[in-house]
Amino acid sequence: MSKTIKLDLVTTGDELLLGIRPNAHLTWIGSELAQHGLKIHRNFVFGDGLEDTKREFAKIWKDTDLVITTGGLGPTADDNVREGVAEALGLKLVFDETIRKSIEERFKKMDRPLKDIQLKQCYRPEKAEVLPNKNGTAPALFLEHEGKIVIMLPGPSHELQPIFTNEVLPRLIKRGFAKEENSYIQLRTMGVSEVSLEEMMKPFSAKYPGVSFSYCAHLGAVDVRLSQDGSMSYEQLKAIAKQCSEAIGDDFICFGHCPLGQYVFDYLRGMERTLAVAESCTGGLLASIFTDIPGASKVFQGGFVCYQNEAKIQMLGVPESLIMQHGAVSAEVAVAMATGAAERLDATHAISITGFAGPNGGTEKNPVGTIFVGYHSPVGVWARKVVYPGERLAVKQRAVMLALDWVRRKLKKYQIEEMIVEE
Amino acid sequence: MSKTIKLDLVTTGDELLLGIRPNAHLTWIGSELAQHGLKIHRNFVFGDGLEDTKREFAKIWKDTDLVITTGGLGPTADDNVREGVAEALGLKLVFDETIRKSIEERFKKMDRPLKDIQLKQCYRPEKAEVLPNKNGTAPALFLEHEGKIVIMLPGPSHELQPIFTNEVLPRLIKRGFAKEENSYIQLRTMGVSEVSLEEMMKPFSAKYPGVSFSYCAHLGAVDVRLSQDGSMSYEQLKAIAKQCSEAIGDDFICFGHCPLGQYVFDYLRGMERTLAVAESCTGGLLASIFTDIPGASKVFQGGFVCYQNEAKIQMLGVPESLIMQHGAVSAEVAVAMATGAAERLDATHAISITGFAGPNGGTEKNPVGTIFVGYHSPVGVWARKVVYPGERLAVKQRAVMLALDWVRRKLKKYQIEEMIVEE
Repeated sequence: MSKTIKLDLVTTGDELLLGIRPNAHLTWIGSELAQHGLKIHRNFVFGDGLEDTKREFAKIWKDTDLVITTGGLGPTADDNVREGVAEALGLKLVFDETIRKSIEERFKKMDRPLKDIQLKQCYRPEKAEVLPNKNGTAPALFLEHEGKIVIMLPGPSHELQPIFTNEVLPRLIKRGFAKEENSYIQLRTMGVSEVSLEEMMKPFSAKYPGVSFSYCAHLGAVDVRLSQDGSMSYEQLKAIAKQCSEAIGDDFICFGHCPLGQYVFDYLRGMERTLAVAESCTGGLLASIFTDIPGASKVFQGGFVCYQNEAKIQMLGVPESLIMQHGAVSAEVAVAMATGAAERLDATHAISITGFAGPNGGTEKNPVGTIFVGYHSPVGVWARKVVYPGERLAVKQRAVMLALDWVRRKLKKYQIEEMIVEE
Repeated sequence: MSKTIKLDLVTTGDELLLGIRPNAHLTWIGSELAQHGLKIHRNFVFGDGLEDTKREFAKIWKDTDLVITTGGLGPTADDNVREGVAEALGLKLVFDETIRKSIEERFKKMDRPLKDIQLKQCYRPEKAEVLPNKNGTAPALFLEHEGKIVIMLPGPSHELQPIFTNEVLPRLIKRGFAKEENSYIQLRTMGVSEVSLEEMMKPFSAKYPGVSFSYCAHLGAVDVRLSQDGSMSYEQLKAIAKQCSEAIGDDFICFGHCPLGQYVFDYLRGMERTLAVAESCTGGLLASIFTDIPGASKVFQGGFVCYQNEAKIQMLGVPESLIMQHGAVSAEVAVAMATGAAERLDATHAISITGFAGPNGGTEKNPVGTIFVGYHSPVGVWARKVVYPGERLAVKQRAVMLALDWVRRKLKKYQIEEMIVEE
C-alpha cells in the first residue's frame, strides 16, 4: 500500500505558455504515475526566466512532499531550473567531475568539440545525487532536503522517459510512494454513452466501495478506469473488472488501451483472414490505421481512396448507374465499394466508407455528416448509415471509429457460423 | 502598444493530472493570446476538489492581474470552480434568472426534460457578468474584483473557443491588455536545421534589435516566429519578415501555419492540375492529408494503398519483373507506382511513397527507415531516396512531409517550363 504524498510537477518552457508545443510531459508522467497508484497533486507551468523559477519554486516547496521538474537543465541561457531550485532552497552549486567526464566522452563519441558553454551542465546542487542520462548531456538530479524531495529531469522526451522509468520510478516504489504493480484496470467500450455507462456501473460501485470509477469519452469510445484504494489485491480488482465487462456486454471492447484497429486486425489475423478497404470521405484514414500496425501485411491487402465518382467506377468497378440512381453516398454504393475492394485485392473481408464530411456537399435526404459504412465478408454483405454533425476532421475520425466498431461486432457475432460454412 | 499584465491560466481536471487527456486549453489559449501580443505568465493545473480549487486560487489571486479558468462550471459534483472562486474571494453566489431561462430554452429545443441538477449552473458570483454560451448550458463568467479580473470559461472546447474569440478577446483588446492586430509573423521552412536557420537569421536579429526570433522544429519543418516589442508597426514587421524569407530561399515554404499538403493542393488548383497518390509504407496518410482539405475533389483524384507486392501489381500495373529485380523499395518501383497511379486515375500529377517503415523488413542495401518517393508530372518523372531511422509512426509522418516538400520544390522549379510545353 502506498503512502499518500503530495507530488507536484513543474514543467518549464516559454513554448508551452505560447501554445507552440503541448505539455506532453504532464500527460506522460501523469499517466505513468497513475498506473502506479500515484496522482499528481498540482502541475505548474512557468516561463524560462531565473527569477520566475526561483520565486515560484519557493512557493511550491512550502506545500509539497515531492517535486518533479522537467526541462531547463541544458547549456543555454534559457536553462535556469538547476540554478533556480538551488537558490530557492539556499543550496550551493558544486562542480561535479563525474558529470564532466561523461559529457566529454559523449562529445568524443560524436566526434564533436566540447564547447565551454556545455560545462554549465556539470554543476549540481550540493547533496544532489546524479542520475545518469544515456541519451543526452544533462543528467537528472535527485535531491533530498528538509525531509522533502526534488527530482530534476532533462526536457527532451527521449532523455526524460528512460530516466523516469529506470531511475525515478524504482526510487518512488522503494520508498513506498508508488506501487509496484498496476493499480488500475481500464475497460474500453463503444456504443454506450458516458452517462449510461456510469448508470451501468452503479451496482458495482455500491458493492465495492474500495474501488473508484472514472470515465473518459473520446471519439465515440468511453473508457472506465477502476482504481482501488489499497484494500485489495490486483487479482481481486481484475475479478471485479471482469464482472463489469460482462455487465457491459457487446459494448465492451477490451481491457486496457487496445485501439479498435488493432482489435479488428488481431481478430482477422487469428482467423487467417485478409482485409481490403475502400474509402471516400475518410480518404485514407482507415487504411492508415491498419498500416500503423507492425506486420500489417499479414492481414491488410491494400486500400482504395476513391474520393470522386469517376474513381469509384474506375478503381472499384462500382456501376455508374448505381451512383446515378442512389447517389455516391448511399447504402448501395457502400456495398458495391466493399465488394469491389475485396474482389480486386482478393481479400476475404472488406470495409468501405462513403459520406459527406463537409463543410460543403450533402443532399436534403443525406445532409453533411451522413456516412454509409459497407462491410463485405464470407457470410454476408451489409451497409449501415450514421449521421455525425460536426467539423470535417471530426467527422472523418468518428466515421472510421464507427466502421471499426461495427466490424468488430459483426466479426464477434458471425465467427462461429463462418467456421461452419467453411467446413 | 499593450499594457504588460500578469495573466494566469488555471486549467482544472483530474483527467489532466492522470494523463488521460492532454492540456489542450493551455496550448490553444496560449497560442491565441500570443498572436495578440500577450504571454501567459503561469499555468496551474489542479484536481476537481472544491478545497483544492479554493486554496490554490486564493494563492494565485495574491500575485496576478487577470486569471482565466477553464472547466468546472458544469452541473455534476466534480464541478467546483464557480464555488471555489467565489469562496476564495469572499463573494456570495446569487441565482441568475436569465441563466435559468436560457438553460430552459436549450433543453426545450433538444426536447429533453430539465433536471434539477442542471440548476446549479444558474448561480454566479455577485458582481459577475454573464457571457452567453451558444453551444452549451453553463455560461462563462466575467468578474472584476479588487482591481483584478477573473474569467471563468466552460470546459468543452467547442463551447470555450467561440466564447474566448467572441467575448473574451475583444474585452482584453478594449482594455489595452491585448493588441488588435497580429503581433508576430511566422515563417515556415523545410530542408534547413534549427541551428542553421538561427545562423541564417543572425544578421537580421543584429540589425533589428526590436524583433525577437523564436524557433520550433516539428516533423522536419522548422518554424521561426518574429515578434516585435511594440516599437514598430505590423507593416514594418512584415517587411522584415519578407527580407528573412528571401534570405532563406528555396527552404522557405510560407508565412503562417499553412500545412505543406494545403500548399501543394493550392498550387495544383491554381494551375488547374489534378493529383493521384500511391502509397506503400505510409499506407493512406498522404491521401488523408489531401482529403482533410475542404473541396479536395477539385484536385485530388484518388489514392492507392498498395502495401503488398501483389497489390502494387494489381492496382497500379507495376511490372512484377521490376519488383523482382530491384525490390519493392526502389527508385524504379517508386516511379512505376507514380506513373501507374496517374494513368489509372487520369491525373496530371502523382506522388508515390514506398519504403521500410519498420520495425521489421529492410535489406542490407536499404535498411529499415529507407524511403523512396516518386513524382510523376507532365514535365518529367523522378524518384528520390531518403533514410529516416526512428519509430514506425514517425517514419510514416516524416516520409509524407518529405514527399510533399520535394513536390513543392519541383512544382516551383518547373512551373514555367510546364506552361511552355503546353502552349
